[in-house]
Amino acid sequence: MAEVNLNQTIRCIVKLGGAAITCKNELEKINEENLETVSSHLREAMILESCSKKVIGMDWSKRAGVSDVSASLSDFGDQGQFNVDFSRFIVVHGAGSFGHFQASKSGVHKGGLNQPLVKAGFVATRISVTTLNLEIVRALAREGIPSIGMSPYACGWSTFERNVASADLSGVTKAVDSGFVPVLHGDAVLDHSLGCTILSGDVIIRHLAEHMKPEYVVFLTDVLGVYDRPPTDPNAVLLREIAVDEDGGWSVVKPKLESTNKQVEITVAAHDTTGGMVTKISEAAMIAKLGIDVYIVKAATTHSLRALSGELRRHIPDDWLGTIIRFSKEVGQVNSSPS
Amino acid sequence: MAEVNLNQTIRCIVKLGGAAITCKNELEKINEENLETVSSHLREAMILESCSKKVIGMDWSKRAGVSDVSASLSDFGDQGQFNVDFSRFIVVHGAGSFGHFQASKSGVHKGGLNQPLVKAGFVATRISVTTLNLEIVRALAREGIPSIGMSPYACGWSTFERNVASADLSGVTKAVDSGFVPVLHGDAVLDHSLGCTILSGDVIIRHLAEHMKPEYVVFLTDVLGVYDRPPTDPNAVLLREIAVDEDGGWSVVKPKLESTNKQVEITVAAHDTTGGMVTKISEAAMIAKLGIDVYIVKAATTHSLRALSGELRRHIPDDWLGTIIRFSKEVGQVNSSPS
Repeated sequence: MAEVNLNQTIRCIVKLGGAAITCKNELEKINEENLETVSSHLREAMILESCSKKVIGMDWSKRAGVSDVSASLSDFGDQGQFNVDFSRFIVVHGAGSFGHFQASKSGVHKGGLNQPLVKAGFVATRISVTTLNLEIVRALAREGIPSIGMSPYACGWSTFERNVASADLSGVTKAVDSGFVPVLHGDAVLDHSLGCTILSGDVIIRHLAEHMKPEYVVFLTDVLGVYDRPPTDPNAVLLREIAVDEDGGWSVVKPKLESTNKQVEITVAAHDTTGGMVTKISEAAMIAKLGIDVYIVKAATTHSLRALSGELRRHIPDDWLGTIIRFSKEVGQVNSSPS
Repeated sequence: MAEVNLNQTIRCIVKLGGAAITCKNELEKINEENLETVSSHLREAMILESCSKKVIGMDWSKRAGVSDVSASLSDFGDQGQFNVDFSRFIVVHGAGSFGHFQASKSGVHKGGLNQPLVKAGFVATRISVTTLNLEIVRALAREGIPSIGMSPYACGWSTFERNVASADLSGVTKAVDSGFVPVLHGDAVLDHSLGCTILSGDVIIRHLAEHMKPEYVVFLTDVLGVYDRPPTDPNAVLLREIAVDEDGGWSVVKPKLESTNKQVEITVAAHDTTGGMVTKISEAAMIAKLGIDVYIVKAATTHSLRALSGELRRHIPDDWLGTIIRFSKEVGQVNSSPS
């Protein structure tokens, strides 16, 4: 695939983890509070210093429980002339409690589109994940972020044995060049070998990062970062920094683990059809290998706001909680800079 | 643009008119009853004779007022092994009471994406029309139609001075080849001259018809067909057949109008940013010129079901109410066959 020709570089690609923005144990339920905070953080991180701070809402549609759709429109009387410039972000979100039920019930991730149950599950999965996509686009638009939903299947993404086989990135590029913030998501797609499969948000992020070379990538999750064992374990230690070498191998740089076994224990939730933490760390390592810093951080916290703002690229404060994954020519060398 | 290479031909492209599937005078309100009937008619028209008639629901998402999402899943116990083949349809819908408010309030159709109000309106319009698209995809899926939403902006459609400049039809083709029914819609898109504009469902239909050569095209509307004057006029006469010549000129063949002035009076609703009947007839004439029969018919009636089924291609019963627009080498020659 050809490199994408961008007028300017992408500042940041953000993953909104499914677990952070949905209520994972309740079917198709959005974590409204988190989503609202994340949207507001994104606005704060994206907006350029010189601009008006006034929010110009861009969701003029009816909402359950909200009577007046035109309230946001009245702002244009005095604010419409001020252009708000947003720096170049791309948002990708996971599915959380949307899509997983439909996908796992039908086995869409295993392929076999000619089976009636799989075909029905493919349609049902896409309905569920596009419902979530629309709600996220709306939440961002209410914060004045000019968000544009781009559904990977419909935008020409397909896979071969679950790896990205085709992806028309020109639409994403044009949207960014036009001042929009594209919002992609994990999706059911056609697979040239299996018939169909699930393309996870993490794989999308890695593909976008490879071709669009953002300055940094942020994964917003529901825990503080990556731990050395399941975070529910009282002895779990938050890994502050992971170094990735040229071969994509990775090791924990900070904190110095007492155990000689530095292999991080990972858990894969049974219902997570796209692989959970294993996928996340290996995808993140692939991104870091390109010289792009990756921050894994808890959504809707001051830590995630700092990560989104890009300030960690210059200096990592001691009170910042999260996991940094970055390239190091010599693994083990602390605080190496990815140039 | 290159001709699309289809494994098989498309049987029918259907336009679900905004006025037929939404309540035109109430913001963002779907005409649920009509949409349900239209979906069921589409299923009946699409399904192949040899197949099981049992509906296998493909919308497994939560719905307001419906408690059990998994009811449709239980069908798979005994029905999952029966494959239901649908003939090759493409659905395109208008906006009705979705999108028009946002588009006209901001002037998206007039361009100027660098203006804050237009940019906000672009985002707001897309939110509104994709909300409708999702609801239509769900209504079709509940009837067991393997529908796939494809949003023109996100799928790479753009215009130059409001004419289609680019459209990646390969995604539509692949979806049809995979046994899905693509569902497109009128959308806000980038215009290479104006910055942005509204691409109407009628223009999308014409473009698809030109490149994909369906056997016939059906426009489902909220009136019986095309009249010689506004249908609210008590003297309005339903035009049963319009012939289109090689230059795209058209004249009424049936009934023989008494008036010497055969020019059909047309009205353009003030809020219809994409042109109303003028656009519809001229787009329909462009399609008919290609030798493709066009039926304009009232949605959710026995007349529309007959049009969708394709039976009018062989014989037009006297009791069928609607407007047929078709090619005639010699305009005025009644019942000429488009070969």
